Amino acid sequence: MTELIYEQPLNERIRSYLRLEYLSQQIENNLQQDHQHRCFYPLFSLCDLTDRCDYRNDLLKEIEKQLFMLAKWQQLPHANAAQIEVFVSQLTSAKEALQTPNRIGSCLKQDRFLNALRQRFGMPGACCNFDLPQLHFWLAKPWPQRQMEYRAWVDHFSPLLEPVNLLLSLIRSTGEFQDTQACGGFYQGDSAQPLSLIRVKVDANQGCYPTISGHKNRFAIHFVQFQEQRHSDKTIEFKLATCP
Amino acid sequence: MTELIYEQPLNERIRSYLRLEYLSQQIENNLQQDHQHRCFYPLFSLCDLTDRCDYRNDLLKEIEKQLFMLAKWQQLPHANAAQIEVFVSQLTSAKEALQTPNRIGSCLKQDRFLNALRQRFGMPGACCNFDLPQLHFWLAKPWPQRQMEYRAWVDHFSPLLEPVNLLLSLIRSTGEFQDTQACGGFYQGDSAQPLSLIRVKVDANQGCYPTISGHKNRFAIHFVQFQEQRHSDKTIEFKLATCP
Repeated sequence: MTELIYEQPLNERIRSYLRLEYLSQQIENNLQQDHQHRCFYPLFSLCDLTDRCDYRNDLLKEIEKQLFMLAKWQQLPHANAAQIEVFVSQLTSAKEALQTPNRIGSCLKQDRFLNALRQRFGMPGACCNFDLPQLHFWLAKPWPQRQMEYRAWVDHFSPLLEPVNLLLSLIRSTGEFQDTQACGGFYQGDSAQPLSLIRVKVDANQGCYPTISGHKNRFAIHFVQFQEQRHSDKTIEFKLATCP
Repeated sequence: MTELIYEQPLNERIRSYLRLEYLSQQIENNLQQDHQHRCFYPLFSLCDLTDRCDYRNDLLKEIEKQLFMLAKWQQLPHANAAQIEVFVSQLTSAKEALQTPNRIGSCLKQDRFLNALRQRFGMPGACCNFDLPQLHFWLAKPWPQRQMEYRAWVDHFSPLLEPVNLLLSLIRSTGEFQDTQACGGFYQGDSAQPLSLIRVKVDANQGCYPTISGHKNRFAIHFVQFQEQRHSDKTIEFKLATCP
């Protein structure tokens, strides 16, 4: 049984976090295994996103909010004090790392090698030997050396990616999976408390994936048969978690 | 010693062929090894290029030209008749495969799964779980099954990619590498006969890569030190092949 988890953000903030987390996972994977020139895609995507939007202030606010919540939890009778302490210390050091004068990733703009590549990577088939001889040279370096250089580039984004991963794991921990059924492939839910993230766990053997839409108080899940690429009319068993 | 080959097309036709060959190599590599969602980049690049330009007529003309040349070679006293026969038969069957009523790759436009992905792949970080739940589903399929499906998609482009690879290998075979020196990191060459492709073989341990420019009768090679990202002023030993 292969259970897959699908997620849907219900606000812009979580949407951004999930996007950053996805890129952070890609980068992690590119550090583990040599994917050659392909490793630059998530790096340049991160450059693009951080060019467009400075996430620091938003993240700092979110960290403050979570620290305030954790302080309240700490006072509850059955609180896991040790676990909360870990989170508090991680969030506190993430906060410090974010308080830099320079925009995150901005110093990579000085890197002529990366700049030349970045201009080309958006064009179809434009990373040829003759387009980017420097890339051809770089790819011939031994993998451990490339891995080290790649790590140095992506490390510039750690002050951004670490708190994002941490905040998402905190947010996910607020919702527990419950067995649920979608009759005729459809499920609708609502919540008095504003929600930020919907999570659906479904066995891949059912041959379908969920498309989720909604806003903070209400959401709908349609299951789509992958093979036929159309809405399922079957009863789908799945697990649902809603995170405030 | 790691010898690297750098190439520079001197006309638009060879430029297109090298681009298509590069994508064909990427695709081949994606068939050998599971690079997850990354396998879609060269596929969509191919879709983009073939959308913009129908390469069939140009390729058919080039195949005719090469067949005419091979027929002439066949009559030379010391010709390798068996080898020429192989080329003639490969080019002839490539010609037949190209004579299809439909534009190459056009039937992939009917594929809803690929269409949904293709719209997203150009945007930074936009292949998240929530952007493309169908991709998340697809990536959970066993690699042999994904490999088979990927092969079926890319096979649509074989009538285009096979003759391109064949023509480039014929063109490359017309130039032999000669030991050459670039004094002060610079070399200039000319040729009475119009050239289509410049090839430079250089040992990576010299720490530099060539940037080549030119047109059919004249070309210049500047060597650039990778580390310093500036023109070399050293004498660089390299091998040069010029292909008409």
